[in-house]
Amino acid sequence: MTVPGAKLDELCINTIRTLSIDGVQKANSGHPGLPMGAAAMAYVLWTRHLRCDPADPAWPDRDRFVLSAGHGSMLLYSLLFLTGYGLTLDDLQHFRQWGSRTPGHPERGDTPGVEVTTGPLGQGFGNAVGMAIAERWLAATFNRPGQPIVDHRTYVLASDGDLMEGVAAEAASLAGDLRLGRLIVLYDANRITLSATTDVTFSEDVGARFAAYGWQVQEVDGMDVAAVDAALTAARADEQRPSLIVARTHIGFGSPHKQDTFEAHGEPLGKDEVRLTKRAYGWPEDADFFVPPEAQREFDRVGARGAERRSAWQQVMLAYRAAQPELAAAFERALAGELPPGWDAALPVFTPADGDMATRDAGGKVMAVLADSLPNLVGGSADLDPSTRTMLKGKGDFQSADVPEKGQTPPTQGLAGGVWGYAGRNIHFGIREHAMTAILTGMAHHGGVVPFGATFLTFSDYMRPSIRLAALSEAHVIYVWTHDSIALGEDGPTHQPVEQIASLRAMPNLLLLRPADANETVEAWRIALQHRGGPVGLLLTRQKLPVLDRSTLAAAAGVARGAYVLADAAPGSPELILIATGSEVSLALEAHRRLAAEGVRSRVVSMPSWELFRAQPAEYRDAVLPPALHARVSVEAGSPFGWERWVGLDGAIIGVDRFGASAPGPVVMAEYGFTVDNVVATAKSVLARERH
Amino acid sequence: MTVPGAKLDELCINTIRTLSIDGVQKANSGHPGLPMGAAAMAYVLWTRHLRCDPADPAWPDRDRFVLSAGHGSMLLYSLLFLTGYGLTLDDLQHFRQWGSRTPGHPERGDTPGVEVTTGPLGQGFGNAVGMAIAERWLAATFNRPGQPIVDHRTYVLASDGDLMEGVAAEAASLAGDLRLGRLIVLYDANRITLSATTDVTFSEDVGARFAAYGWQVQEVDGMDVAAVDAALTAARADEQRPSLIVARTHIGFGSPHKQDTFEAHGEPLGKDEVRLTKRAYGWPEDADFFVPPEAQREFDRVGARGAERRSAWQQVMLAYRAAQPELAAAFERALAGELPPGWDAALPVFTPADGDMATRDAGGKVMAVLADSLPNLVGGSADLDPSTRTMLKGKGDFQSADVPEKGQTPPTQGLAGGVWGYAGRNIHFGIREHAMTAILTGMAHHGGVVPFGATFLTFSDYMRPSIRLAALSEAHVIYVWTHDSIALGEDGPTHQPVEQIASLRAMPNLLLLRPADANETVEAWRIALQHRGGPVGLLLTRQKLPVLDRSTLAAAAGVARGAYVLADAAPGSPELILIATGSEVSLALEAHRRLAAEGVRSRVVSMPSWELFRAQPAEYRDAVLPPALHARVSVEAGSPFGWERWVGLDGAIIGVDRFGASAPGPVVMAEYGFTVDNVVATAKSVLARERH
Repeated sequence: MTVPGAKLDELCINTIRTLSIDGVQKANSGHPGLPMGAAAMAYVLWTRHLRCDPADPAWPDRDRFVLSAGHGSMLLYSLLFLTGYGLTLDDLQHFRQWGSRTPGHPERGDTPGVEVTTGPLGQGFGNAVGMAIAERWLAATFNRPGQPIVDHRTYVLASDGDLMEGVAAEAASLAGDLRLGRLIVLYDANRITLSATTDVTFSEDVGARFAAYGWQVQEVDGMDVAAVDAALTAARADEQRPSLIVARTHIGFGSPHKQDTFEAHGEPLGKDEVRLTKRAYGWPEDADFFVPPEAQREFDRVGARGAERRSAWQQVMLAYRAAQPELAAAFERALAGELPPGWDAALPVFTPADGDMATRDAGGKVMAVLADSLPNLVGGSADLDPSTRTMLKGKGDFQSADVPEKGQTPPTQGLAGGVWGYAGRNIHFGIREHAMTAILTGMAHHGGVVPFGATFLTFSDYMRPSIRLAALSEAHVIYVWTHDSIALGEDGPTHQPVEQIASLRAMPNLLLLRPADANETVEAWRIALQHRGGPVGLLLTRQKLPVLDRSTLAAAAGVARGAYVLADAAPGSPELILIATGSEVSLALEAHRRLAAEGVRSRVVSMPSWELFRAQPAEYRDAVLPPALHARVSVEAGSPFGWERWVGLDGAIIGVDRFGASAPGPVVMAEYGFTVDNVVATAKSVLARERH
Repeated sequence: MTVPGAKLDELCINTIRTLSIDGVQKANSGHPGLPMGAAAMAYVLWTRHLRCDPADPAWPDRDRFVLSAGHGSMLLYSLLFLTGYGLTLDDLQHFRQWGSRTPGHPERGDTPGVEVTTGPLGQGFGNAVGMAIAERWLAATFNRPGQPIVDHRTYVLASDGDLMEGVAAEAASLAGDLRLGRLIVLYDANRITLSATTDVTFSEDVGARFAAYGWQVQEVDGMDVAAVDAALTAARADEQRPSLIVARTHIGFGSPHKQDTFEAHGEPLGKDEVRLTKRAYGWPEDADFFVPPEAQREFDRVGARGAERRSAWQQVMLAYRAAQPELAAAFERALAGELPPGWDAALPVFTPADGDMATRDAGGKVMAVLADSLPNLVGGSADLDPSTRTMLKGKGDFQSADVPEKGQTPPTQGLAGGVWGYAGRNIHFGIREHAMTAILTGMAHHGGVVPFGATFLTFSDYMRPSIRLAALSEAHVIYVWTHDSIALGEDGPTHQPVEQIASLRAMPNLLLLRPADANETVEAWRIALQHRGGPVGLLLTRQKLPVLDRSTLAAAAGVARGAYVLADAAPGSPELILIATGSEVSLALEAHRRLAAEGVRSRVVSMPSWELFRAQPAEYRDAVLPPALHARVSVEAGSPFGWERWVGLDGAIIGVDRFGASAPGPVVMAEYGFTVDNVVATAKSVLARERH
């Protein structure tokens, strides 16, 4: 028996709906309303447009699908199950249970086919812009005539809530500016949020707003398969503008008592309502997790078509490898997340003869080398590259090549050649720290690029929700945070970080490095690029610092262990430990010398990374910080919060326990106690207390 | 001698410009470009439209002026000096110096006439929306026919950078929805940011975007006094829509080499360029901080007109006091930030007989009382009030009264009467956590209301940049953060806070309270409302908790001291201390009982607030945590980060050192070690180590 087209569509759509309803009902927790309303759109996208092969969820040239409205996770799980990504009915039946592959919100790594971790609203939208950027950069860099080895799109399903969030607004503005025509957003405009109808707070004209950003905007009935299909076709046809399809839908569609109400949003329908809803669909009321065979056959076609497409792409890759062996090797290395041979051979080594140098400047010199040795290092700043020193000089701006008024020279393709147009490697994120961060995560998870983003450390606050998701989903992103203390001076307390270092240290999976001088900065970058398992933050100074004399001090390679003995008491047996990070290490060294002159035997520990130090074996940690040695003083121009971990209750913490102040940097530092005198006096008082 | 009109305007404008140039040059630090480009607009606003009296910067019915582009601080300082706010030339000459009244960015509290602390972009815009909300609420609540005691506007000067930030986009969307016609934004569209021209990243049509939000939008030549004047008049005439005046300006106007370049943005012009610029203005090239007497006379008129207006308002207030003595008293108490007599008399007292209760539910019951006893408690949630329990029932939605399609009943004025329209006390912030927070700060600094805002604790990340400014500027705002641990369960790691508590504790001036049960929740609210000097965060559970039996345990009033001995070892001499916060206190109590049964003498300390406990005298702290007693175990379902402060290096910390997981809450808690068994076993191992 065959089922006629429209009927078959409805059968498939209702299969998605009822699986989602049943998953939520069985878990007794979750969000049934979105899957019920958006199933038709998702069905059209997945069965008629999405370029994917469920047999290989990691196929590099697949279209990316981002469920920005992550609370509708059962929609995605149902699709992944039905199209053959390896999810099972059992997985769907363990929705939201301990250890299952179907957690409450989609989590990258837990489930095949989940591209990014979503849930906090707006984030997936930002990630998707990053994916679309990565695709355009890879295409411009690696494609050759007749060999489009990168040729895919990024699709998003976004909710009202996603589009209320500022991060999505920032990302949409940038996507329009960059003319990311390969980005297509289905906006599930159901006008219902968790607590209310949107008209109590969200009466703006979203379509007009996106048109103002430079997007193609279409409005359709999101319950109408043909209309959605036509809109997706039109969206794909416009390669000059990202597309927003404003799809009017009905949350909780089919539920006699809950459709179009916020009660359908975030709670199970309830057993009785589930039955009534199934009845409304013409579904067997008592069958749970029921998949009609005709529907399954239709969903199976996704895999069949995907296999063909992937096979065709593999043929193109074969020809590409033959014609462009070096480029092909670089492409495959980039996708594998490997660093090119010799990438760090030319990294600089500094000596005191180079003169005092801010670590932001040392970072800039490192990046000047990496610009050549690591050709897929791509990123930018939130309008602060003159201050953060993060411009990849001579590597072009990432810009649409089709915008003559932007003053670009015409694009030349490829790594070896020019670097204009979408092959440019400097992204102007604008004053949009939050979107920048979500975009970087999307770039990392797209694969093929090593993304970085820069701003002042204080403004890491703006980035925080996206940093967290990068950490949770273990994205390899490098954040360059300069102006890392009150020593930045005149800009004052609004710009001076205080609590940021502690706040970031508290986050799981985030590696922080606060190098003490130019050579530690080199090591920090080396570690950052090799690190896996989460993002890395580099904390760099605005102010100049001495280049430490490594002929008399320990080598900067100690950075890799998180903390190391930089200078020790002359006879070898310290009675006191000074622990410092970043710009305060040279201050601790001066205090150490003064103490030595006064007969006090101190050790200076440079501790650029708590996280790396904690990962060392106990014997190493105990060698650096002997447990019996309680006389310890920490020096860091940031919140004292957390430093008891290293100095205990017997030590002293020299930190910043209030907001900063506007004045020249050296004045601020002196007023806040970052002077040799104060470190020496504090050390002596700790020692006296210990001896007592 | 009199100077003709246009000439006088130019003289005044150039006075603002040259003062700003000289201030930055003398500090050798700062941002001259914005004041030079925006001086004409600011001059028109301040001398022809702004309702203010420099003799009384705190006059309640003044117009508010927010320099959202805080880096242009010298513009504001020049205006405050010229119009007579008490700033002196000496102050201008000490721009950005230690202890001066002219810090790098405007800071509320440092300088008379500075309404809010700005600098981090987008924040001032959000604050201004909050001020406009407060104005409308106070007007709807207190004004009576013929007695408009609240009748002012909020003006903003915003830059390209402000309007790139998501927080401003969120706030603008809400302002449009709420039809805040008393809000007028001058957008200094100079198309230059710190690092570039805006066309590399910000090519959107800002005017069209704001029109989509429902704003009145005008485009003018921002250098043209008459055009700006007319636009401001038209903006004031539209009381139904907030207004955006897109003013094309020239950054660094008049500087022969730097006008219209980003070099004018963030650095002094340099001595030679200062001379050339002054020459271009027809200014004496060698005169620094020069104020032509004709210009000063013109600026003096601001004060003269302001005195008249304030005097007229005082007459209205006199009549109002006579006609509405009770309302007048409530109004003046609200403006003074005082709580009404008896405001806490009806707060509930809970007993175990009330059954287990989530602290969010206890919080809801407290708010139900406060809804009546504290009539200027105004706030809402970021679309989560069904979950956060923060709706003030029966107190109406804050909505424009002129929007029949919103389904509001017609507004009735006054505290005693209805609560609809702008007198409604529940603000639907939408899924806009960041704007919500900036708005709350603006409401607090406007005065007259006690603002609160709610969301899940995890999403405090979205709020963070605005929380920081609230803390820095000591705004009295209450954040209600529910779902405060991994115990929230199924929603999984994207929604489960881990590092948030530690991250927030690291912030200066922020008071956190994590109550252990319903009665501690009452105390927490009591403290929050009486606290001054910064915002307060309440951390509340989703899950139910026992109501602690205060007939056998210490009174919940101990919350006021931050930490207190809830239960002690029977003979009085504990050998071990269990320190817990919030939901983990009842777990610690259970462990305490089990330990007692096994002959181990433990003390349970409930520590709802680190900040309050640290502020106690040393003898109290030592009585709660005897220094000699090293066997300590902390229990908190959050990051262990920082807990060494209380348990030292000899204690143990039961916390969450990785991200959460999706599963029912009790399962997650058990898997992460929050069980009586684990607390008991940990306590015993600490004790064994101590004895050893």
